[in-house]
Amino acid sequence: MKILLTSSGYIEPAPIRDAGHEVVLFDEGRPVPPEHRDAEAMVLWGGGGSGHGAVLREMPGYLTHLRWIQTLAAGPDNVLAAGFPSSVAITSGRHFHDATVSEHALALTLGCLRRLPQAVRSADRHVWDRDLGGAKPVHDPKRLTTLLDARALVWGFGAIGQATARLLSAFGAQVRGVAHSAGERAGFEVLAVEQIEQALPDTDLLVMVLPSAPDTAGALSRERLALLPSRAVVVNVGRGTTVDQEALEEALREGRLAAAGLDVTDPEPLPATSTLWSAPNLLLTPHAAGGRVVGATQRIIANAAIVQATPAGAPLMGLEALVTR
Amino acid sequence: MKILLTSSGYIEPAPIRDAGHEVVLFDEGRPVPPEHRDAEAMVLWGGGGSGHGAVLREMPGYLTHLRWIQTLAAGPDNVLAAGFPSSVAITSGRHFHDATVSEHALALTLGCLRRLPQAVRSADRHVWDRDLGGAKPVHDPKRLTTLLDARALVWGFGAIGQATARLLSAFGAQVRGVAHSAGERAGFEVLAVEQIEQALPDTDLLVMVLPSAPDTAGALSRERLALLPSRAVVVNVGRGTTVDQEALEEALREGRLAAAGLDVTDPEPLPATSTLWSAPNLLLTPHAAGGRVVGATQRIIANAAIVQATPAGAPLMGLEALVTR
Repeated sequence: MKILLTSSGYIEPAPIRDAGHEVVLFDEGRPVPPEHRDAEAMVLWGGGGSGHGAVLREMPGYLTHLRWIQTLAAGPDNVLAAGFPSSVAITSGRHFHDATVSEHALALTLGCLRRLPQAVRSADRHVWDRDLGGAKPVHDPKRLTTLLDARALVWGFGAIGQATARLLSAFGAQVRGVAHSAGERAGFEVLAVEQIEQALPDTDLLVMVLPSAPDTAGALSRERLALLPSRAVVVNVGRGTTVDQEALEEALREGRLAAAGLDVTDPEPLPATSTLWSAPNLLLTPHAAGGRVVGATQRIIANAAIVQATPAGAPLMGLEALVTR
Repeated sequence: MKILLTSSGYIEPAPIRDAGHEVVLFDEGRPVPPEHRDAEAMVLWGGGGSGHGAVLREMPGYLTHLRWIQTLAAGPDNVLAAGFPSSVAITSGRHFHDATVSEHALALTLGCLRRLPQAVRSADRHVWDRDLGGAKPVHDPKRLTTLLDARALVWGFGAIGQATARLLSAFGAQVRGVAHSAGERAGFEVLAVEQIEQALPDTDLLVMVLPSAPDTAGALSRERLALLPSRAVVVNVGRGTTVDQEALEEALREGRLAAAGLDVTDPEPLPATSTLWSAPNLLLTPHAAGGRVVGATQRIIANAAIVQATPAGAPLMGLEALVTR
């Protein structure tokens, strides 16, 4: 089977070729070369590089043999929006990013709690910063300094959110999730979005893991930010659009929020002229949480075997991480 | 019972008073005032502030009613060296620092892996650093970038080392300990110090949690450092004296080590003139891992009850964290 494989994704073609497929590397930012438009399968990030959306939206017009698309990104939003016919099965990058993004969420959280930006700046000035060391209370009423007994809320409780919750728990935090519907998931209490106003005043750490979607834009609004205690820390490893960035910056500048760790901003890249760069107690990384796919090769080979074994036109049964449309 | 309580330790006297004791706050850096030298118990950090050692060594001469000393520091080395008679029971700060120091070890580790110093410096220049973000291989052959599948070695496998090992495991690392004797502890394979030369070439992350002691000085020697692969990361939350600091700095400067996270140096504070400050890929915090005692008040009250209930001269039975001398 001919499989188009993104050349940008650090997926090695060799194991897929060893499974008996013809693998053709292609650039996601350009139209597929005419001689490879007969491909039956495509593996791509499906993310939002500049111009990629337009390239993607033209594909349904010429990739007429296509039966299956595997996305590497955690959310296949862009591919879903490209207009492929329903006969094309789309499988998502679910679980590919759990380990890396949750790890980054913890890096940002601990970086804020242990005030690593201040440590870096003091070290650059050759200063042994006594403000950071020495005897301290276990729980500082002014700012969250440890995950031990911290009241954490993970907003967005899919696979990445749950992985983040497990890690926070390992450090002794009391973790609850927030999702569309309340209940219990993966052993954690999950609140419905409608309950968040009640939960925020009792939250020391808010970790945002929301995808970009019409109903998540500005989810952490100015009003909701104002409900957090001033000792709280906000971390965002989801999408920049889910947080009112201006309100967040103001809260940091006015000391109404202890610290924030952001891996995502709105827009990206953050312009050099943005005032956000210089907000106090901000730890900012340039969308570096994921970008590495764990376990993808195995899923690609397993799903490709199913597609190849299924006659054209027959329903594809048992694809892993199939997106319902 | 009259208990001398360090005024520097953020232990609240109220709950101890509520348990029926006379609590007298004292400054560890000065001799105990004459009117309080009849105390039967003393709670102190017992650490190595400048001049504290001399003050401590005079105490056995005048604290003649003393029956029990509770140290808050993880290692009671300084108190043991002060020359108190064997009739004075000494209980240590074992477990008081597990959560905080292991948490800081992870903050330094993730800070190195996720290159937070570079992120802070780029943000200070208002630069969206593409070197940090974007598509990356899961496992970078040039430097450790994730704990997932990382081969970690925790050198010093007491309570803090074991807590650190548990956290590293939660992120998917393969963790082994190093201690005086080989075996299995807390579910982890433990190597004897004599085996470390064999283990270092297969180590991606070395976390040092060694106390200051005659046999730990320079434990991570120049020769042992040279055995680590160049993609490895070294973290030290134990004592600065346990690492050949000059050799570590050279390894960083020459690219023979990917990164280091140090909470401790030799000496402390690190002088402004030290060249270590400017070593590349170094994340340095000013002895900020611990300094917060978790669960101490409960242990002080429990141990004090035993001392008070035991007639003077009779053996003290059941003290928690009693140090054998």
